[in-house]
Amino acid sequence: MRLLFLGDIVGRPGRNAVIERLPSLRDRWRLDCVVINGENSAGGFGITETICDEILAAGADAITLGNHSWDQRETLVFIERQPRLIRPANYPAGTPGRGANLIDTRSGARVLVVQAMGRLYMDALDDPFAAVDRELETCPLGQVADAVIVDFHAEATSEKEAMGHYLDGRASLVVGTHTHVPTADHRVLKGGTAYMSDAGMCGDYDSVLGMQKEEAIRRFIQKTPGARLEPGLNEGTLSGIAVETDDRTGLASRVAAVRLGPNLEETWPRFWD
Amino acid sequence: MRLLFLGDIVGRPGRNAVIERLPSLRDRWRLDCVVINGENSAGGFGITETICDEILAAGADAITLGNHSWDQRETLVFIERQPRLIRPANYPAGTPGRGANLIDTRSGARVLVVQAMGRLYMDALDDPFAAVDRELETCPLGQVADAVIVDFHAEATSEKEAMGHYLDGRASLVVGTHTHVPTADHRVLKGGTAYMSDAGMCGDYDSVLGMQKEEAIRRFIQKTPGARLEPGLNEGTLSGIAVETDDRTGLASRVAAVRLGPNLEETWPRFWD
Amino acid sequence: MRLLFLGDIVGRPGRNAVIERLPSLRDRWRLDCVVINGENSAGGFGITETICDEILAAGADAITLGNHSWDQRETLVFIERQPRLIRPANYPAGTPGRGANLIDTRSGARVLVVQAMGRLYMDALDDPFAAVDRELETCPLGQVADAVIVDFHAEATSEKEAMGHYLDGRASLVVGTHTHVPTADHRVLKGGTAYMSDAGMCGDYDSVLGMQKEEAIRRFIQKTPGARLEPGLNEGTLSGIAVETDDRTGLASRVAAVRLGPNLEETWPRFWD
Amino acid sequence: MRLLFLGDIVGRPGRNAVIERLPSLRDRWRLDCVVINGENSAGGFGITETICDEILAAGADAITLGNHSWDQRETLVFIERQPRLIRPANYPAGTPGRGANLIDTRSGARVLVVQAMGRLYMDALDDPFAAVDRELETCPLGQVADAVIVDFHAEATSEKEAMGHYLDGRASLVVGTHTHVPTADHRVLKGGTAYMSDAGMCGDYDSVLGMQKEEAIRRFIQKTPGARLEPGLNEGTLSGIAVETDDRTGLASRVAAVRLGPNLEETWPRFWD
Ligand SMILES: [Fe+2]
Ligand SMILES: [Fe+2]
Ligand SMILES: [Fe+2]
Ligand SMILES: [Fe+2]
Ligand SMILES: [Fe+2]
Ligand SMILES: [Fe+2]
Ligand SMILES: [Fe+2]
Ligand SMILES: [Fe+2]
Repeated sequence: MRLLFLGDIVGRPGRNAVIERLPSLRDRWRLDCVVINGENSAGGFGITETICDEILAAGADAITLGNHSWDQRETLVFIERQPRLIRPANYPAGTPGRGANLIDTRSGARVLVVQAMGRLYMDALDDPFAAVDRELETCPLGQVADAVIVDFHAEATSEKEAMGHYLDGRASLVVGTHTHVPTADHRVLKGGTAYMSDAGMCGDYDSVLGMQKEEAIRRFIQKTPGARLEPGLNEGTLSGIAVETDDRTGLASRVAAVRLGPNLEETWPRFWD
Repeated sequence: MRLLFLGDIVGRPGRNAVIERLPSLRDRWRLDCVVINGENSAGGFGITETICDEILAAGADAITLGNHSWDQRETLVFIERQPRLIRPANYPAGTPGRGANLIDTRSGARVLVVQAMGRLYMDALDDPFAAVDRELETCPLGQVADAVIVDFHAEATSEKEAMGHYLDGRASLVVGTHTHVPTADHRVLKGGTAYMSDAGMCGDYDSVLGMQKEEAIRRFIQKTPGARLEPGLNEGTLSGIAVETDDRTGLASRVAAVRLGPNLEETWPRFWD
Repeated sequence: MRLLFLGDIVGRPGRNAVIERLPSLRDRWRLDCVVINGENSAGGFGITETICDEILAAGADAITLGNHSWDQRETLVFIERQPRLIRPANYPAGTPGRGANLIDTRSGARVLVVQAMGRLYMDALDDPFAAVDRELETCPLGQVADAVIVDFHAEATSEKEAMGHYLDGRASLVVGTHTHVPTADHRVLKGGTAYMSDAGMCGDYDSVLGMQKEEAIRRFIQKTPGARLEPGLNEGTLSGIAVETDDRTGLASRVAAVRLGPNLEETWPRFWD
Repeated sequence: MRLLFLGDIVGRPGRNAVIERLPSLRDRWRLDCVVINGENSAGGFGITETICDEILAAGADAITLGNHSWDQRETLVFIERQPRLIRPANYPAGTPGRGANLIDTRSGARVLVVQAMGRLYMDALDDPFAAVDRELETCPLGQVADAVIVDFHAEATSEKEAMGHYLDGRASLVVGTHTHVPTADHRVLKGGTAYMSDAGMCGDYDSVLGMQKEEAIRRFIQKTPGARLEPGLNEGTLSGIAVETDDRTGLASRVAAVRLGPNLEETWPRFWD
């Protein structure tokens, strides 16, 4: 199978990059499953139902969230009727939506998409390692699921690397999100799980985390309130990871970083060209 | 000028990688100045005078530190007689050592090396933006210094990107350290400053931050004390950034990521081949 | 001299308690100087110019702020014309307002009022110990100032006790604010400085920090957005500390907790009755 | 029933105060149940089996712990054979010891002692509100348990007050520990639960958190390593809360702060004299 994961869409530049480029990438690379983090797709803060539908229509099979899950209040409601929208599995019991789902992809494969949120330098949540364990036990790779994609939305590289090794051999891909900067450590771990500490963002990279940089810089220097943070206005870049799995095991056989657009050094899975 | 910056050396695998590869890289790439972060070079915790001398002998012009500066107590003493060892400039007044120094390189150029430490998710220190401002005013790029290298030892990508843009046009290179994972956002910013959110580490990448992974994983799952964290035992990988500057301005003209060794996708400045 | 310090006024219950009780307390106890923390006086979030004037008219000689200083944007402007409104001294250079001021009290005495903000579990600021040092050097107790009151707005008891001992003998009173719960450790330290880790709040104590408790509890249990936090609706309680100083030295000779109103055990300086 | 809860014992001054005073207080006040937090009883760091036995022998029915539970490695072992030693209930599954126990007291009553640890500004743990809920459902007040004492080991007053109100009517006493400073907000909440944000510590109050103050102050000012923190050397003070419950309901009818020893204003339950 051919999987593509793209990092946090930030505002219009990120949405435009996805909408304009994803349909042709799906065809060109004959992708079986595309998962995209959408927690910042609505002006940098959360996601609306309209935007969720747009991203799915552009070719995503599932969308993941994160600490910005509920920035748009409507998400608390429409997530209940949108099984392709996945929020962190380690939210408290009773939280709207689901933390994992077995997604039927357009190619007919079934992909388990799980999200968990880290706890180091983040909000207080229950154990993400235990939460992912529970989801994987219900729906093991190679038995129920043809592929397993885990989006670990976390700040600290220590927690992310620990999660990658912890799940090695049980997931097709463990990929970090949240820092909005792609890491260069994409690879297949020893047990067959593709790993990348952070997928980066889909958005304007001439910015601070995809948001216009002047106000973001000012906040580090002055401690007074100022303007709202607004998404950057420049052309967005796609950033993420491409994984090819072995159809028998669901484990990763090949991996490549994906970066298409301005500011970053472009790269893509040349083995799919 | 040709500059090389390498990220946090972690234990013996990191030291060996530097000692074995740096001398030939200096020659092959005709490097003018090499700066390496050494805060984890002694068993993962700090630096000793012997190790400091080894790294300098291998071809470093300066060594930077970070939150692990004083893990080896002797550093409080020998840093006073080692002008090439730089600790964060925003430590309190009276802290041993120096936060910046104008280094005479082997090629005869003078390079200002500055380090500051971030405050987001890190220990309480004075403003790193103000601290770097002060150092750059004393010793401006293109006037007193032929090149300026700023190591911003920080956790959060927001603070790092803000520092990069804040210094754009005033430094040859602003490079992050501390997360031990290289980012893929190396580039020359609009004002001519080379930037990379994190240089990654020099060490064993089949690990958690360069340390053996079993105990590191366990600590996220259990909350009981266990074994000491020890550096990985596998072959180390070099990770960092290469920058070519314009001799007239000291600003960056070309930039490339450097990753040499196992686990990561290898890359280097092909424009110097 | 007779000094009264009252903790964070929270919303209308806190304002009403101050406005109704302070005038008669000033007379009854023949107070020389009253300082009140007002950072939550406007609906729980910051202070307006109208409220500032009300509190001063009720008998305060000075008002201190804290992490909520700028919740009401107008404060950035009117603080410049209100010398009796003091914000943390360790805000960045260029911040509107002042971190200390020598206040002429109604009784003719001059009282230095200083505020600093802690860094443990709080926003990143410059060293509060150094900031208070600078203010006390400019205006030493017993020479320029007849009394010195330091409001240390901080979360952690360790940092507060450290500040108390650090300033012991150099201030008449070091009192903590910010936790909204009075501590029972009011006393005169060995060097003659009155100390209390937290003054508590002036507000509705049948609450969470003075705010209505249902939504505050919900936020600890669920991780979804809900209603705004609103101040409690019950009668407010005054909480703070009373200090008598030696006119020759400005140091404290007697100290008592002050708690007047419902919910808490009432107490006051019986030595002034 | 007559309950006494004492806060964190810090080192020898705290142990001596408990051992010397508790036996006579048990008699004089005819106490049914005494619970003491012992997380700092061994030189400020954890507890040993010898010290645990000493505290029980002095008259404690149960001992609670906290973030320092495992500072002495032996505790991981002996806690398994010591049912009167209670560690936070929201530690991960598989942690040695128990987070709650129904204690048979010397007077024949059965008291449920529960501990949970807060998450605000503390280590990442699972939800303490849910953890306490589970314990109280198993062993409800007035049915299985004659009294219920909850030690909420937490930093933030917001989380503590939220827990107090959350459990109001379901516990005899909710008392905070960890800050080592007693609060002055002891009272009976509307639903009949006695509450106090922090019990304070049993130890030397001429200190920073019970530890010698010079090194503790230095660490806030300098960022270099120094001496070990050692417990204070002065006479210790007892600090905590006394509760009288209604035998039919197990809810609190009367409450008083307890502070016996130097530095703090002494107070005790005069209704028991
Ligand atoms: Fe994001
Ligand atoms: Fe995020
Ligand atoms: Fe490091
Ligand atoms: Fe570091
Ligand atoms: Fe406040
Ligand atoms: Fe505050
Ligand atoms: Fe403690
Ligand atoms: Fe504690």
